[in-house]
Amino acid sequence: MARRVLLQLDADSQPSTFDAIVAVDAGVDVLLRHGGVTPEAAVPLVHGGMFTRGGKDLSSTAIFVGGSDVAAAEAIFRTVQKTFFGPVRLGVMLDPSGANTTAAAAVVVAGRHADLAGARAVVLGGTGAVGRRVARLLARERCRVAVASRSAERAKAVCDSVAEAVENAQLTPVAAQSDAGTLHGELLDCLAEADVVIAAGAAGTRLLSGECLRQCVKAKVFVDLNAVPPEGIEGIVATDAGRPLTAERPSAQPPAVAYGPIGVGGIKMKIHREAVQQIFHSNQACLDAEEMLEIGRAFA
Amino acid sequence: MARRVLLQLDADSQPSTFDAIVAVDAGVDVLLRHGGVTPEAAVPLVHGGMFTRGGKDLSSTAIFVGGSDVAAAEAIFRTVQKTFFGPVRLGVMLDPSGANTTAAAAVVVAGRHADLAGARAVVLGGTGAVGRRVARLLARERCRVAVASRSAERAKAVCDSVAEAVENAQLTPVAAQSDAGTLHGELLDCLAEADVVIAAGAAGTRLLSGECLRQCVKAKVFVDLNAVPPEGIEGIVATDAGRPLTAERPSAQPPAVAYGPIGVGGIKMKIHREAVQQIFHSNQACLDAEEMLEIGRAFA
Amino acid sequence: MARRVLLQLDADSQPSTFDAIVAVDAGVDVLLRHGGVTPEAAVPLVHGGMFTRGGKDLSSTAIFVGGSDVAAAEAIFRTVQKTFFGPVRLGVMLDPSGANTTAAAAVVVAGRHADLAGARAVVLGGTGAVGRRVARLLARERCRVAVASRSAERAKAVCDSVAEAVENAQLTPVAAQSDAGTLHGELLDCLAEADVVIAAGAAGTRLLSGECLRQCVKAKVFVDLNAVPPEGIEGIVATDAGRPLTAERPSAQPPAVAYGPIGVGGIKMKIHREAVQQIFHSNQACLDAEEMLEIGRAFA
Repeated sequence: MARRVLLQLDADSQPSTFDAIVAVDAGVDVLLRHGGVTPEAAVPLVHGGMFTRGGKDLSSTAIFVGGSDVAAAEAIFRTVQKTFFGPVRLGVMLDPSGANTTAAAAVVVAGRHADLAGARAVVLGGTGAVGRRVARLLARERCRVAVASRSAERAKAVCDSVAEAVENAQLTPVAAQSDAGTLHGELLDCLAEADVVIAAGAAGTRLLSGECLRQCVKAKVFVDLNAVPPEGIEGIVATDAGRPLTAERPSAQPPAVAYGPIGVGGIKMKIHREAVQQIFHSNQACLDAEEMLEIGRAFA
Repeated sequence: MARRVLLQLDADSQPSTFDAIVAVDAGVDVLLRHGGVTPEAAVPLVHGGMFTRGGKDLSSTAIFVGGSDVAAAEAIFRTVQKTFFGPVRLGVMLDPSGANTTAAAAVVVAGRHADLAGARAVVLGGTGAVGRRVARLLARERCRVAVASRSAERAKAVCDSVAEAVENAQLTPVAAQSDAGTLHGELLDCLAEADVVIAAGAAGTRLLSGECLRQCVKAKVFVDLNAVPPEGIEGIVATDAGRPLTAERPSAQPPAVAYGPIGVGGIKMKIHREAVQQIFHSNQACLDAEEMLEIGRAFA
Repeated sequence: MARRVLLQLDADSQPSTFDAIVAVDAGVDVLLRHGGVTPEAAVPLVHGGMFTRGGKDLSSTAIFVGGSDVAAAEAIFRTVQKTFFGPVRLGVMLDPSGANTTAAAAVVVAGRHADLAGARAVVLGGTGAVGRRVARLLARERCRVAVASRSAERAKAVCDSVAEAVENAQLTPVAAQSDAGTLHGELLDCLAEADVVIAAGAAGTRLLSGECLRQCVKAKVFVDLNAVPPEGIEGIVATDAGRPLTAERPSAQPPAVAYGPIGVGGIKMKIHREAVQQIFHSNQACLDAEEMLEIGRAFA
């Protein structure tokens, strides 16, 4: 059996050590790490993986695409797929800045407490790399998704882009004030009706005050993905992992529950490791956010 | 026993994944990969290999020099050898763009069907990295080699350079038209007398038409190294590996045979893997095209 | 048990192969090598190590900081330590250009032949990366240290810097001529009183002539760290490892002994390997020259 070789193609000049260590812990034998990768530079690197091993050993080589510049990583990911031809392809996954694994983990934990099909969801900070993916995954689960952003324009662009990717998606762009204490009426209306609230804003940005949280009278689950103080949703602790919000929302029955970034992090890491393993199961594997959600569901 | 450490010194900014994976499959334990290597930058990297392990463990560290810029890799290869002193040296091999292993493999398969000593050979596309090496190897086998190129000047330069390296080499530069359908009379004469025809031109360049092939009335073996359509020699299929050309050359007895790039590729890969293993057998090993031909012969 | 992952953070554009191979030989399973590292670039690389493994597996990830630019490596080392928080930290060692391991080894061998506490020492070439560390280590051992340099100003700067780091350090800056044959009177006086003489100058620089050596009438041990001819101390051979200087210093009883760079190199390599192992024993480990001296003493 050939040793498992992972090509780490990273758009950043220094390839991520995080992704490398997770790969090691997922059982990769040899890492071939490349930083500063562009789509053009990726082609010969992918060829090197395609043309060295034949037959069943082809699936012992796989590709991880990452980096903190999500758009740059997405461009590499597309080029990698176009470089394959016929059956000569390699397992590949995309997880720039952990955006895919994080979004998948957020939707997995939300799905534990709400039936997503037909549910109403609000994605706060919905235009960032994680937020866009959360919106896309929820739309595919047939949620009615409100995408909130300080910029109405960017919120609309995300909705349009998700609608292109997901058939029959139900999406509403919503403008939010940066000061979470004085939310726009439209967003407050969405929150009052929401079953699921996920905060995916920039690190250290408060998106929902405790007072607004109390106005989310129908919400069954709150997920805050911001790990840098202050919390994205006031009152949610980083380690929350299904903590009932009985004090904050005493009337809700059953009580709404809260997840913080570390609470979500455990399942995110499991998804990441399992995804690395799956790209070695078959050279046909091609894992984006949707496939990682599938993986996460198996753990839920 | 110390783990086998291979220094991959690559002239390209992204070191080759192809060479890395072959090294892994040849049993290397640890790869130290360096891209953008210059001769100056190579010196401390080589010193690091020379001064860390003593005694018999010295042969558990070796060096692979590669990259798509063949001249740049050759300069690194020369510097590596000059950096050694006395018995403090490391096994080293040179294979930029696979030029050495490919040339060696081409000559190995040609030698299966023709007695090279005294044979007449034509190397089409003889001024590229592979072609120059094929010419050199054939000259060393005492072939009478015609080196064909669109540029008479470059063909002559290759002949001069091979003549410097190989004693008593018999070489003739020949000008070829870029349009293979209207070959120069001199080249046609060479082809009509040739026992061996090897096409080593640029990817996707037709060097010999089917009509010209039929005029190679004495040829025993045709080798086409071009993997990108159209074929370098019309009618040779990439996977040909000794296929008799009974339709194309019905009168030849025994029939001439054809090798395409994939047909040659199997032995090329074997040579590459075995070369990697040999640079760990002895810290005296220094493998250029000639040594790889020796390796390939053992498989023939 | 998680595989041992070492982050090699190197200030040079090509990370050291020397440090990589020593790490492999010290039992590291996976090397994550980074060249051209700056303090800013180090932060996300360190985070990747901090946030991937939990519990006792945290100590299976560690950091090596190196490079030929010692000041640049020191800046990275400081940033690495500031990036840790609370118990979330990784074992880390600093050894740019081998300066720490070399200085520790020099002091270890000196300590075999002289009781360092209260001894008088002269550090020739005392303002280079190794020399400054030798001075610091000797001062901490309560030696009275004369730091010699061609530049009186730089010698003073080193003394001031060591005095800041070491309580009650006894240091004297001494100006030396570049021509060792005509040493300043003050340096000659220091040498005549010295128990320990360590030459840590630039490669290929003669710092002490044979005639001056004979004037070191009280010296018990001479250590020359210069591996490039001519020797830093005339008459000391690279391989000297405790050779009695009976011819050069016939009257000394017991005879003074000499160490050359290769003679010191064996213990230097042992210290280096053991240091790599110790940064995996505990995620609290933080090894600078002082800790490496402790390690070296255990071998002495």
